Amino acid sequence: MPVRVDIAKRVHDHTWKLDPIVRTLLDTDFYKLLMGSMIHRLHADVNVTFSLVNRTESVRLADEVDEGELRAQLDHARTLRFGKNELIWLAGNTFYGRTQIFDPDYLAWLADFQLPEYELTRHDGQYELRFEGPWRETSMWEVPALAIITELRSRAAVRGMNRFELDVLYARAKSRLWDKIERLRVLAKEGPLKVGDFGTRRRHSYLWQLWCVEALKEGLGDSLTGTSNVKMAMELGLEAIGTNAHELPMVYAALADSDDELRASPYQVLADWATMYDGNLKVVLPDCFGTTNFLRNAPSWVAGWKGARPDSKPPIEGAEELISYWKAYGEDPMEKSIILSDGMDVDTIEASVRHLRGKTNVLIGWGTNLTNDFRGCAPSGFDGQLKAISLVCKVTEADGRPAVKLSDNVTKASGPNDEVARYRRVFGEEGVVDLPVAV
Amino acid sequence: MPVRVDIAKRVHDHTWKLDPIVRTLLDTDFYKLLMGSMIHRLHADVNVTFSLVNRTESVRLADEVDEGELRAQLDHARTLRFGKNELIWLAGNTFYGRTQIFDPDYLAWLADFQLPEYELTRHDGQYELRFEGPWRETSMWEVPALAIITELRSRAAVRGMNRFELDVLYARAKSRLWDKIERLRVLAKEGPLKVGDFGTRRRHSYLWQLWCVEALKEGLGDSLTGTSNVKMAMELGLEAIGTNAHELPMVYAALADSDDELRASPYQVLADWATMYDGNLKVVLPDCFGTTNFLRNAPSWVAGWKGARPDSKPPIEGAEELISYWKAYGEDPMEKSIILSDGMDVDTIEASVRHLRGKTNVLIGWGTNLTNDFRGCAPSGFDGQLKAISLVCKVTEADGRPAVKLSDNVTKASGPNDEVARYRRVFGEEGVVDLPVAV
Repeated sequence: MPVRVDIAKRVHDHTWKLDPIVRTLLDTDFYKLLMGSMIHRLHADVNVTFSLVNRTESVRLADEVDEGELRAQLDHARTLRFGKNELIWLAGNTFYGRTQIFDPDYLAWLADFQLPEYELTRHDGQYELRFEGPWRETSMWEVPALAIITELRSRAAVRGMNRFELDVLYARAKSRLWDKIERLRVLAKEGPLKVGDFGTRRRHSYLWQLWCVEALKEGLGDSLTGTSNVKMAMELGLEAIGTNAHELPMVYAALADSDDELRASPYQVLADWATMYDGNLKVVLPDCFGTTNFLRNAPSWVAGWKGARPDSKPPIEGAEELISYWKAYGEDPMEKSIILSDGMDVDTIEASVRHLRGKTNVLIGWGTNLTNDFRGCAPSGFDGQLKAISLVCKVTEADGRPAVKLSDNVTKASGPNDEVARYRRVFGEEGVVDLPVAV
Repeated sequence: MPVRVDIAKRVHDHTWKLDPIVRTLLDTDFYKLLMGSMIHRLHADVNVTFSLVNRTESVRLADEVDEGELRAQLDHARTLRFGKNELIWLAGNTFYGRTQIFDPDYLAWLADFQLPEYELTRHDGQYELRFEGPWRETSMWEVPALAIITELRSRAAVRGMNRFELDVLYARAKSRLWDKIERLRVLAKEGPLKVGDFGTRRRHSYLWQLWCVEALKEGLGDSLTGTSNVKMAMELGLEAIGTNAHELPMVYAALADSDDELRASPYQVLADWATMYDGNLKVVLPDCFGTTNFLRNAPSWVAGWKGARPDSKPPIEGAEELISYWKAYGEDPMEKSIILSDGMDVDTIEASVRHLRGKTNVLIGWGTNLTNDFRGCAPSGFDGQLKAISLVCKVTEADGRPAVKLSDNVTKASGPNDEVARYRRVFGEEGVVDLPVAV
């Protein structure tokens, strides 16, 4: 059988120097831009350090991922600038039902933005990767840094595979995802289902995430709420989704000058957010320093917000706590949205949606188990290095002060021990659990 | 993400008139050439009619496959000629360990060969497709005719699927086959395993068969004996495998002028075959008119042949009968090969190989369940038209006389009722079973 050879492609393939992982600055999560716009307006002078943390310590990242390749990808990401068409789209598109959501001043700043410098060292088989500088700049590293390391790890894992083994690997991964989607289609027939892609940071690869999002679009139809990946939302005509993250309360808390200010800081985040956004964008992230105390001490106006994203308790338990909270304030939970995004997969999606339907609006943010589930897919039978790990890029300092996260799960707590102890004393430890973290 | 467009390919795609199913006359089973060479030398003057028979009557082929498309594909196959490089390869290659296996005279005849005319009519939802003419010519239609109809049926089945559904369909089919191959790899670790591709005639498609054969090559290594598809053997550097088929004893029997000649005809086939081929090519096909009587009445030299292909009894039962036969003649079954090729799939391969190892050399001819198993693969959940059917193209007449096949399974018998009755009387009915036929 004569094989058609695409000479240009072949020549391109054997002359390239780098196969970029991050191809545009828009290949990031939407919440980075929403938060970025607020940071730009209110905290342009704050310096924040983000650091890579591999919570799956058994995986020695520095042994699996080549340092030269890592530097080449990070350096490449620093050469990127937002495209003119991308900025026009950000300015002109409707997000969460509203136009002109971004300050023109912020968009003008984005036009000249480049990712700031990074510090990369190795210690005991792990990479120490830090980004120091203005918050509005270093914040932008979180998603590309995680995506780069995760994809380099994938590439290392498949390096020994031949064309055929790769074919089988992806055939199985596609089958695996489609089987999940068919289960979700059944779930959608029973009642309302809303699922969105939150899988950019820990995706197996850019192209694989693209396939996954197209699969959701094809398989779920109106049950797909969108994707957190801004570039893919733009290209595929989907909604860009996501609101805010722990970095906001973590930085506000670190900058607090007293225990009273510390205790008030999570609500100050919300007060500032409300000066920027409205409606469905008013989503509370209640778990940064423990959900139970957050809700108990919250000003009454917090109950009026549109939704919440419990992120570290078991999903049904976290949702029930919020429903009780809203009810206590006379709010109708059916008018609220609860976004579940902590390590969700099809089993927990089914259980949560079936339990919570009719009680509130459940929105699923499906992340790592959507875009990086290759369990049992390697044709060699060995897929150890294809197993997703719990890698995060977190705020560790703000204006020279240590940053802390407690969360509802002690396994997810971060920060220096003495600071963690102080935060626990200030916020309380009610409702905190101890669960293993998979992804 | 910018998509690289291959303009030439796009233009080609939207200007073609026909996507050919049979791309070369070498896209056929090897036994057609081995038999063809014998027919050419000994029976150039015999006229034989081959007819399509759909044994899965519940499937109304003429409703599923468009007549215009069928005619276009059959007409296209008639435009084909053997390529010069293909004839050189047939002349120069080693087959079954021997060079120059084909008469130069036969190869010269092949150089000018084209598929003869066909007759196509419809009756009660089925196609009646007949090939009448010189045996050496009409015989060559069997495999392309079956491959064309089967692939047209596949194409009709996937016609409503979009690009994404097709992606999932083939991902699942690849996963499915690779899961089978992994089971065969386990089987190969336990002891000798020899598996070959016999799936040309009922393949889902040409490209899919190619993938399946490459998968076997990759996954089974030395356990892969080769492929019956001559073109793929040539292209992939594999052994071309296969020996002879029922058309030989069927035509010889039809031409017999008396019951005695009829009774002797299956052995005359073997006597003639032995004038053409030697060694591993001396494989008996014992079931055409019932295996039990065939073995009981066989001249003693038949026991000296290298192997046998039981084709219609349950595989272990058919093999055990042959082993007993050889032992009764003082032949060592470990020096013999038994080729199992009747509807084999991974379950029956495992069972047969585990049972027969150490008793004889088992060779698996894996056909329809290798190259056309799409059960459970359709993303829509509906894969009715992707289910393989029992389609054959059989000898129905030789020099104007009806042809008959009894086989060991009454479900597989063919021919006019009175002739079937006469054959049963002449050959006997010992050991005949009644089993459903899937493929």
